[in-house]
Amino acid sequence: MPIAAEQLGLVLQWLDLAGILVFALSGALAAGAKRQTLVTFLFFAVITGTGGGTVRDLLIGAPVFWVHSNVILFICFAAALIVWATPARLWRGKTLDWLDAVGLAAYATFGAAKGLAWGVAPLPAMAMGVLTACVGGIIRDLLAGEPSILMRPELYVTAAALSAALMVALTLAGLPGFIAGPLAALAGFLLRGLAIWRGWSLPAYKA
Amino acid sequence: MPIAAEQLGLVLQWLDLAGILVFALSGALAAGAKRQTLVTFLFFAVITGTGGGTVRDLLIGAPVFWVHSNVILFICFAAALIVWATPARLWRGKTLDWLDAVGLAAYATFGAAKGLAWGVAPLPAMAMGVLTACVGGIIRDLLAGEPSILMRPELYVTAAALSAALMVALTLAGLPGFIAGPLAALAGFLLRGLAIWRGWSLPAYKA
Amino acid sequence: MPIAAEQLGLVLQWLDLAGILVFALSGALAAGAKRQTLVTFLFFAVITGTGGGTVRDLLIGAPVFWVHSNVILFICFAAALIVWATPARLWRGKTLDWLDAVGLAAYATFGAAKGLAWGVAPLPAMAMGVLTACVGGIIRDLLAGEPSILMRPELYVTAAALSAALMVALTLAGLPGFIAGPLAALAGFLLRGLAIWRGWSLPAYKA
Repeated sequence: MPIAAEQLGLVLQWLDLAGILVFALSGALAAGAKRQTLVTFLFFAVITGTGGGTVRDLLIGAPVFWVHSNVILFICFAAALIVWATPARLWRGKTLDWLDAVGLAAYATFGAAKGLAWGVAPLPAMAMGVLTACVGGIIRDLLAGEPSILMRPELYVTAAALSAALMVALTLAGLPGFIAGPLAALAGFLLRGLAIWRGWSLPAYKA
Repeated sequence: MPIAAEQLGLVLQWLDLAGILVFALSGALAAGAKRQTLVTFLFFAVITGTGGGTVRDLLIGAPVFWVHSNVILFICFAAALIVWATPARLWRGKTLDWLDAVGLAAYATFGAAKGLAWGVAPLPAMAMGVLTACVGGIIRDLLAGEPSILMRPELYVTAAALSAALMVALTLAGLPGFIAGPLAALAGFLLRGLAIWRGWSLPAYKA
Repeated sequence: MPIAAEQLGLVLQWLDLAGILVFALSGALAAGAKRQTLVTFLFFAVITGTGGGTVRDLLIGAPVFWVHSNVILFICFAAALIVWATPARLWRGKTLDWLDAVGLAAYATFGAAKGLAWGVAPLPAMAMGVLTACVGGIIRDLLAGEPSILMRPELYVTAAALSAALMVALTLAGLPGFIAGPLAALAGFLLRGLAIWRGWSLPAYKA
């Protein structure tokens, strides 16, 4: 029951671009927090903005999405320049967390949808959404030498899993992408938002 | 002289599943040691269980093995749930090391065999076994913020190299997979076992 | 206006081999600095020597360059054995930095050229050069538990970007590879060399 590639549609394409932009911003902000140079800003913006989607495309055997046009890298470069040129106080506090939340929900949804569109089985399609939503942030944290977001107590992977699972379930239930996509992305974003705002977390493992 | 894909046979398929299961368990245990949530357990089990084979398949140009069926992820999810639901003292001590040893030997052997089956040259086929056997544990350690197993003094990469080299040599010598596979896996497992049990190590570099 | 694969020519192939050899040496030296065993030397030499080119080939959809012949791994193994067998004082001081500089410039140039040869758009071709030149060193630093070269103050990514951008620009301007290649590699090497020698750096971000 995989959906056709063209059915990914406009809404999902916007989710994809939103994911790329906000992850690129979050990468540039991580470089900023470490007082790096403009070139490292660009490097971090590209790696974080494209990392998740790159892994997704390699796994499903699709051509890597940013290789055959200049647009995606322009977006990442623009994100880096925006962060570089604006006062740091604009980005203080939880800005990075909220950008990351948008990227997480958008990428988890789009990743699951693209997986289904390429004929991936349902469970791997869900995993595709989760993995690719998390990979950008994971690489960013690894390169910056920060503790991985994966290991922090708040809900994070869970929010990506909610978006991805919902996208797969709603699509298999027959909903078109322009309805399933926003619903799935919104659910994951709200859950991650509650985690940021109220400190929600799943129960941790007790030995 | 590459062997045909079907000759990989039943024994090697069991080695593959064994590698996936025990690496998934070791990933879940690493999440448990860090007091993570169930969702992070699942994430670590999937990444550690499938990481090595994923890199292998990307390198040899094969379709990534877990993408087109639900079975492999079910195994990883089951491993995560088993670790989550059982008392931690079951897994104390060197359990993680021994599981990792089984995964290492099984994956090194199967990785080399699959490399040969896909027409990879002998030396890269051996490297394929080693790299893919080590990648799961390396990613697990990186994500958990642990020092990489690569850098610990005991024999580790060496045991994978023994299994992989033996598998390539025995296959090129004409032995069928159902004999070469168990022999190669057993040799690597024994060597790694001696390293765990007796603290065996290769001589370190002296400046 | 992509150049044909055969036009990569002899000079670029030498740049490629130079990149592999010096990154392999730098990987082995990192293993040596951590007092590792011979097998870990080999592992680090292979990962560091082939890592950048592997990522490049996966991204552009080319067969991974070291998989179908034994030669590349022989080079990496030889690099590991050379470092293992020679007195450490030969390699003291800034040796690792200078080897890394040669590899960086060579790989950035060759990566951009191979990207163009495979029909990649200009901006991604430049990024291909940068990413693949930096990936070997990044993986080496991650595995060795060292702070990433990316985060150190000196010019590093910038030098790779200079080589890659020059290679793309000169090629699009119509220069043949045997002129554009050495020019681009030399420019990047000189810039990185000045960074090592005089401590040159770009201005860092001010909050």
